[in-house]
Amino acid sequence: MSSAPISRFPVPRLEELPEDIRRRILEVQEKSGFVPNVFLALAHRPDEWRAFFAYHDALMEKESGLSKAEREMIVVATSAANDCQYCVVAHGAILRIRAKSPLLADQVAVNYRKADITPRQRAMLDFAMKVAAGAGEVEETDFESLRAHGFSGEDIWDIGAIAAFFALSNRMANMTAMRPNDEFYLLGRVPRK
Amino acid sequence: MSSAPISRFPVPRLEELPEDIRRRILEVQEKSGFVPNVFLALAHRPDEWRAFFAYHDALMEKESGLSKAEREMIVVATSAANDCQYCVVAHGAILRIRAKSPLLADQVAVNYRKADITPRQRAMLDFAMKVAAGAGEVEETDFESLRAHGFSGEDIWDIGAIAAFFALSNRMANMTAMRPNDEFYLLGRVPRK
Amino acid sequence: MSSAPISRFPVPRLEELPEDIRRRILEVQEKSGFVPNVFLALAHRPDEWRAFFAYHDALMEKESGLSKAEREMIVVATSAANDCQYCVVAHGAILRIRAKSPLLADQVAVNYRKADITPRQRAMLDFAMKVAAGAGEVEETDFESLRAHGFSGEDIWDIGAIAAFFALSNRMANMTAMRPNDEFYLLGRVPRK
Amino acid sequence: MSSAPISRFPVPRLEELPEDIRRRILEVQEKSGFVPNVFLALAHRPDEWRAFFAYHDALMEKESGLSKAEREMIVVATSAANDCQYCVVAHGAILRIRAKSPLLADQVAVNYRKADITPRQRAMLDFAMKVAAGAGEVEETDFESLRAHGFSGEDIWDIGAIAAFFALSNRMANMTAMRPNDEFYLLGRVPRK
Amino acid sequence: MSSAPISRFPVPRLEELPEDIRRRILEVQEKSGFVPNVFLALAHRPDEWRAFFAYHDALMEKESGLSKAEREMIVVATSAANDCQYCVVAHGAILRIRAKSPLLADQVAVNYRKADITPRQRAMLDFAMKVAAGAGEVEETDFESLRAHGFSGEDIWDIGAIAAFFALSNRMANMTAMRPNDEFYLLGRVPRK
Amino acid sequence: MSSAPISRFPVPRLEELPEDIRRRILEVQEKSGFVPNVFLALAHRPDEWRAFFAYHDALMEKESGLSKAEREMIVVATSAANDCQYCVVAHGAILRIRAKSPLLADQVAVNYRKADITPRQRAMLDFAMKVAAGAGEVEETDFESLRAHGFSGEDIWDIGAIAAFFALSNRMANMTAMRPNDEFYLLGRVPRK
Repeated sequence: MSSAPISRFPVPRLEELPEDIRRRILEVQEKSGFVPNVFLALAHRPDEWRAFFAYHDALMEKESGLSKAEREMIVVATSAANDCQYCVVAHGAILRIRAKSPLLADQVAVNYRKADITPRQRAMLDFAMKVAAGAGEVEETDFESLRAHGFSGEDIWDIGAIAAFFALSNRMANMTAMRPNDEFYLLGRVPRK
Repeated sequence: MSSAPISRFPVPRLEELPEDIRRRILEVQEKSGFVPNVFLALAHRPDEWRAFFAYHDALMEKESGLSKAEREMIVVATSAANDCQYCVVAHGAILRIRAKSPLLADQVAVNYRKADITPRQRAMLDFAMKVAAGAGEVEETDFESLRAHGFSGEDIWDIGAIAAFFALSNRMANMTAMRPNDEFYLLGRVPRK
Repeated sequence: MSSAPISRFPVPRLEELPEDIRRRILEVQEKSGFVPNVFLALAHRPDEWRAFFAYHDALMEKESGLSKAEREMIVVATSAANDCQYCVVAHGAILRIRAKSPLLADQVAVNYRKADITPRQRAMLDFAMKVAAGAGEVEETDFESLRAHGFSGEDIWDIGAIAAFFALSNRMANMTAMRPNDEFYLLGRVPRK
Repeated sequence: MSSAPISRFPVPRLEELPEDIRRRILEVQEKSGFVPNVFLALAHRPDEWRAFFAYHDALMEKESGLSKAEREMIVVATSAANDCQYCVVAHGAILRIRAKSPLLADQVAVNYRKADITPRQRAMLDFAMKVAAGAGEVEETDFESLRAHGFSGEDIWDIGAIAAFFALSNRMANMTAMRPNDEFYLLGRVPRK
Repeated sequence: MSSAPISRFPVPRLEELPEDIRRRILEVQEKSGFVPNVFLALAHRPDEWRAFFAYHDALMEKESGLSKAEREMIVVATSAANDCQYCVVAHGAILRIRAKSPLLADQVAVNYRKADITPRQRAMLDFAMKVAAGAGEVEETDFESLRAHGFSGEDIWDIGAIAAFFALSNRMANMTAMRPNDEFYLLGRVPRK
Repeated sequence: MSSAPISRFPVPRLEELPEDIRRRILEVQEKSGFVPNVFLALAHRPDEWRAFFAYHDALMEKESGLSKAEREMIVVATSAANDCQYCVVAHGAILRIRAKSPLLADQVAVNYRKADITPRQRAMLDFAMKVAAGAGEVEETDFESLRAHGFSGEDIWDIGAIAAFFALSNRMANMTAMRPNDEFYLLGRVPRK
């Protein structure tokens, strides 16, 4: 495992952390087998940590008209546009797992226009990329295009809000030089037997 | 007062809202004399609302090496770069009040390089703008420049995190077509007697 | 009143100026109650001053299919795209007065797509922004769009010529670091009784 | 000679024009052997015509620390950046004549960084291009660089003002689809005997 | 003739070159009356030279649904977008000769949207420019537009491949600071008697 | 294995191909265990195919001051900037193998500034990216920076020429919608035992 620093800023040790944060981190470790570095790097600021993960969970864990794989597509596509190494590598792994596809994450990261996705998913990513890179130009016609693909108003909010939340997340990761865990690179690439 | 819609999405009435959200909104109304539209437009999603304002408060209300006026400068400069009408108008008002200056907000919004600010504040805004628009290019040299102006590591986190948080906020406001309250436009422009 | 310099270049005193320029400046002062800094900063070059204001008046003062408020919208939108503090602040004030609206100028400056304007005015500003930022791509189809909104050929010339003239004006203001008068910031914001 | 239209807008016949404009045009024709189309296309608006050429002459015909060839370099470089066919072709011809060089205009138009010019001229064009394309970022350090190359404050004004004036001129030419006269293409390319 | 260096890298003398390369160069000199500098500058690397000209000839010399003049239009338009002095000047000359037009090359170089070309050629250049500047966004709809103008699949490959090959060529010329021969500037401008 | 088309254009069957091309393809298949799609997709045009691979080999297979892994870093970084799915996926695999690192390719593809590379390699990639995206701005100072890191003139040519060749390659892959073989995604990720 790599010993390179995972953040430009001080990273707290588990035992220094407030109880609620430590408990969540131990749960994640239990479930995933390792602690994704974002949980440690952002814990430098416990209040921001709590808001960050509350926001994340509100968008990524809830019921939605978007499947979990689709939500991860949004994360990977917009994070690639933002040159965010942590998010592309970590959420690429999650996308591979959620979509049960070893190829999709790399396709979406490099050029989502050429990924193995449906026209509906393409429309979803076009809107997400617009929110990520030129939200000031979002207009009523964008909503109409999405509705023509069957997205509800709530779905559209989800697409835009995920793109918006990862605009924050990408900037934090880039500012802190957050390093993806080595484990993420291989996750979901080899079919489990 | 304008009767134009304040969001492309449904806006809940106060009495429909969960108790904690309604209480906070009434407090703000009590203090400001009106309810800023962001509190209502985002309340369409209570869990996201809670995370949003928890994050906001963790950055904007706490003790920091940056004054509250300086934090608002970051909001105004980066929100203008993102063409975010709500944030420039609303936080422009707050900046005028915090800085006790009727001119500073418009100066920063149009071209912060020509605003009446100190060289230290200029360095702060240069970094905030880099996090806002090209965070993938943030490097160690950026940190050195900021340290040369006396910013601590914690201050730098604050600058970057505020720019990152409003990257989210600007995108939500643009996606929802959030409308600034008419009240904001004049706030802080006329000296109180 | 601010005592910051109004230009990077020498600014002539009124009594040093040629008679025709001084007379015009005194008329403006008489009418407005103060001398907008552009009249003083550009007077460093009397011949250019005369051509500048002759051009300005030929576009902004004459009869036109565009109302005076509409012409000021063009100035504010394109000057904001050019990060021109002087023009956004000064013409923002004029726009508020001409449109009898305390809100419109700030809306147009930050994101004209979300301003309280008509579809016809939106088409006008779309074309003005194209002339301002990518005139080489203007094509016959742009003219057709404008005609569909009822603009005559003369109106289209006016829109393009105003955007072109303020391309010059914005660059002069930015090059000289022309400072807006403090008076402009509040003009047109408070309803007169 | 080409019979393609020289403007998207109506072009007045010589005999329809006000006396002062017609006289100037006949003088130019006498001197050059043909009437450059800019004189005819802009004459659609006599008042704007007068201001345009008054501004042009104030910058391009007067005494200056910049040679006439240097001023034309600024026109050609910035007009190429603005994709302005009329100005690159017409002022390319003038540059070849003024600089007595059949090569310089094409070099400057395609990539001024690789043109046969002096380091001082390179600094001049770097500043002109900044005024043309990003004037909002002009700062005191730009002035210092130019002064280090021996440019006076008046020279710097000239550089910036020429770039600013042709920002206007390029936009008018692109909006009107102004067509360069066929004669310009060959002018100054063949050494006179 | 200019004595300025034709490359930042060492340029071999004719007699040092491998026999096949020298023979081709002498043939070109025989035909054109001079040796275009690209043959000498790239000969610094004989194997790359051979591949470069084999590729060039495979695209530019073969039978095609595109005329030779049309292929040169693609070269000039995309090379101008890449600020490549060598390719614009050298292929501008070839375009003038192939199209028997003294005007077309300069028109295409500055702004191909305003050149004297057919709608079919305009569609061809629009696609070439997309391949040159944003090939990742090429989609099936681009192919449909071209087919509507009568281009076959083979024609479309030719357009894209020429734009792609000159993406390479322009970068080599810019990296090596390859200097166009003085002879190119005048070629094809004066009608032969 | 995926059955999606590997090109927008017709793909020849092995037995239809000229002998020299078929032989090379069979050799590659023998060595790699599969035929990378670029060999098939480009074989639609045998002459271009021969020039393409001759150029490729002249740069990528020869002795050089750059290691083979370093050359692949250039390919991956610039191909990612060009949104080229085929090249990032295929050359990412080669980079993992050449560098004996399962992490490096993804790091370089998303943001080479944060990859586990040496300062010398960083300088190499900075220059390659400049050749890829803004070759017209390459200047003598870029060469000086590279020499300060110990690169010879020949090394610099290699860096620039590889970036230039993949500018071509990326555009061909994007134009043809060339699909990376499924095999590439996993290559070099799992340590061989």
